[in-house]
Amino acid sequence: MRIQAICIGTELLTGHTVNTNLALMAEALDGCGYTVACEVCIPDELGVIRDTVRAGLAQADVVVTVGGLGPTCDDLTRPAVAEVLDAPLHFDAAIYRHIEEYLRRRNVPLRCEALHVQAQVPERATAIVNRNGTAPGLWCPSADGGHVVVMLPGPPREFGPMFLDDVLPRLRALAPPDVARRGLRVVGVPESIVEERVDRALAGVSGLTKAYCARPLSVDVRLSASPDRAAALDAALEALRAEFGPAALDAGEASVVASIGRRLRGRGWRLATAESCTGGGIAEAITAEAGSSEFFAGGIVCYANDWKTAQLGVRPQTLAAHGAVSPETAREMLDGLMGRTGVEAAIAVTGIAGPGGATPEKPVGLVYMAIGVRDRREVHCRQFPGNRGTVRDRAVATSLILLRNALQESDGAEPAAATPAG
Amino acid sequence: MRIQAICIGTELLTGHTVNTNLALMAEALDGCGYTVACEVCIPDELGVIRDTVRAGLAQADVVVTVGGLGPTCDDLTRPAVAEVLDAPLHFDAAIYRHIEEYLRRRNVPLRCEALHVQAQVPERATAIVNRNGTAPGLWCPSADGGHVVVMLPGPPREFGPMFLDDVLPRLRALAPPDVARRGLRVVGVPESIVEERVDRALAGVSGLTKAYCARPLSVDVRLSASPDRAAALDAALEALRAEFGPAALDAGEASVVASIGRRLRGRGWRLATAESCTGGGIAEAITAEAGSSEFFAGGIVCYANDWKTAQLGVRPQTLAAHGAVSPETAREMLDGLMGRTGVEAAIAVTGIAGPGGATPEKPVGLVYMAIGVRDRREVHCRQFPGNRGTVRDRAVATSLILLRNALQESDGAEPAAATPAG
Repeated sequence: MRIQAICIGTELLTGHTVNTNLALMAEALDGCGYTVACEVCIPDELGVIRDTVRAGLAQADVVVTVGGLGPTCDDLTRPAVAEVLDAPLHFDAAIYRHIEEYLRRRNVPLRCEALHVQAQVPERATAIVNRNGTAPGLWCPSADGGHVVVMLPGPPREFGPMFLDDVLPRLRALAPPDVARRGLRVVGVPESIVEERVDRALAGVSGLTKAYCARPLSVDVRLSASPDRAAALDAALEALRAEFGPAALDAGEASVVASIGRRLRGRGWRLATAESCTGGGIAEAITAEAGSSEFFAGGIVCYANDWKTAQLGVRPQTLAAHGAVSPETAREMLDGLMGRTGVEAAIAVTGIAGPGGATPEKPVGLVYMAIGVRDRREVHCRQFPGNRGTVRDRAVATSLILLRNALQESDGAEPAAATPAG
Repeated sequence: MRIQAICIGTELLTGHTVNTNLALMAEALDGCGYTVACEVCIPDELGVIRDTVRAGLAQADVVVTVGGLGPTCDDLTRPAVAEVLDAPLHFDAAIYRHIEEYLRRRNVPLRCEALHVQAQVPERATAIVNRNGTAPGLWCPSADGGHVVVMLPGPPREFGPMFLDDVLPRLRALAPPDVARRGLRVVGVPESIVEERVDRALAGVSGLTKAYCARPLSVDVRLSASPDRAAALDAALEALRAEFGPAALDAGEASVVASIGRRLRGRGWRLATAESCTGGGIAEAITAEAGSSEFFAGGIVCYANDWKTAQLGVRPQTLAAHGAVSPETAREMLDGLMGRTGVEAAIAVTGIAGPGGATPEKPVGLVYMAIGVRDRREVHCRQFPGNRGTVRDRAVATSLILLRNALQESDGAEPAAATPAG
């Protein structure tokens, strides 16, 4: 199945928006054994959209358009696709009512004209419900049934759920995968070392394609082969599990936070965080996962020094003698947090995210991470490269990996390394 | 000047890499009055690269390729462009020495073959020095001089400086800007209403192009016109400022957090947050901006009910009688936070992010946001649509907008509405 993506929106070509939709769609398709053959990014111009969709259909079985379904004058995907597919637009009363209801629930003033535009649907098209916005997606087959144009809205929080929950299952029903894939998520091992160890573990195995993706919290190893080689892929995955041992997430663990949560829930333990330079990012990452309320008690973002003292009991003498960014302060943040709240597991982080605040002895990127599991305490130091955002992201990722490893060691497993993957 | 971008790399089409290069290039060009007419993203395949570059040259004056200049077997941009431009590759000794020197300084083992590949240059091409990697960029005019292909490496830290420092000045020397632009960021007004009001404010003004981009915290309005209409653009921008009043960010305010920060700093006030369902996301958003330590004291993530009581003094009777998600709890969180820490401004948020925890009376998406500025207190209720991530994102966005509006009102300005933009 040949798939082409067409991302529509002047904002993509003026740099006001980074195209994350392509990556989300491509990754989801890749995970199911399909490939995006090509992506084209074009402005909100009727003629350009029309010509690009037409050219796409000449080369691909499925064209997915993203964007241009909004209510404003520069949203032109609907009429362009209608023209290319020779499928005139008509008013769909059910879609109209859905949008009306959606806006009413949000107390947004109804603008009749805008509603009407978004309820225009090409002949033969079926609507894909948008739970996070007004414009429905549209699944529109060509007159001969040989091609499909799928139109989806551009805002990522609308596009993402619609693509993953509705479009992907429909595409999978159209044609079998082009390749079979297996994946393993490795935590705390740098990408180049992961590659070296994969090569070693799979020496002598042929006919598999290996790919690597360095993420903030892990390196993803992906194996692919033709669909008839599923057994060889399973054997290779087992070999990699043996190679990486505790550094590989278990099959049921989608993420480092899930791995942490499983270990905490199993013992009825609670987790808390104390954050300075990460500013709430660790708590945010933990609570982003549904079910985290079962083990996450809360967090203190002690951005100002007086908060470190008032909220966590860090001694002013410690701050004066060693500075807010020091192993001593990290340790007192951790001790104060665990002592005052009675949690069994905790993370405390202090560092210099930049661009300001650095000194010759304490450069941007210097971060101390204290990890507590019951009576055990560790303070780790890292010097992260990159700008403010990168340093914060790495500190969040590394501290979560360190906690996961500490919990795993307290299970009696062999310790794993902790280097952020990216 | 018509510019087309061609991004080359299978990793972009499997979702392993988000294409940030396009946004960087497009934003820089846009800022100088040029436009990327179209972008195409293709895999590392010789034939596809060749055909896409050829098609690009048929439509554009300048084709910028990004990626495929590395030393490995899947880096094929050089030979593809050489073929299309009929400009045979030859070995360039100066480039070879530069790469050799670059690797030697970094103690990277020299791989002679890889060096040789990267020192191959099409006839007529001039090299663009790569200060952050080995592959030079290549500026290659067509034989008749009417077109240019610019080849740049894909890794963002190599691509970015080369594009901004070397390629952009050369492009600006080729042709004057195509358009003049002005922009306005509107906060707390839905996109369709923004358009309606823009149309009203600019009724009778012709020759301007309007574009809209809905972001999490704002709607961006962009006006463009031919370069000789700069005065008309300035007048239109003034008209929009008058129309939106306090809902428009000031010229010097890049974001809602910047707007909050400016108002707090001006008075020497401090801000704190108390978060339940947003789990630290508000503090994270505030501290993502450099300089936030000048006004942000800290935050309490009181995810568990016992933390709401212990850290913020929310009364157990309030939790029992009204529930954790209630205006009463939001108000006590705010009062406890401000009373205990002495900050002048604060946000407290409690809600149901889902998927669990909902009841018929309290559905997923119900969020209470309490805003405090000195003695003034407000509790706002919203019913956000969408999944866990969307509800959390909207609660973060809306509460920041509400705080900004409250600070603005305390300036004496007319109140602005608060609906998240998207």
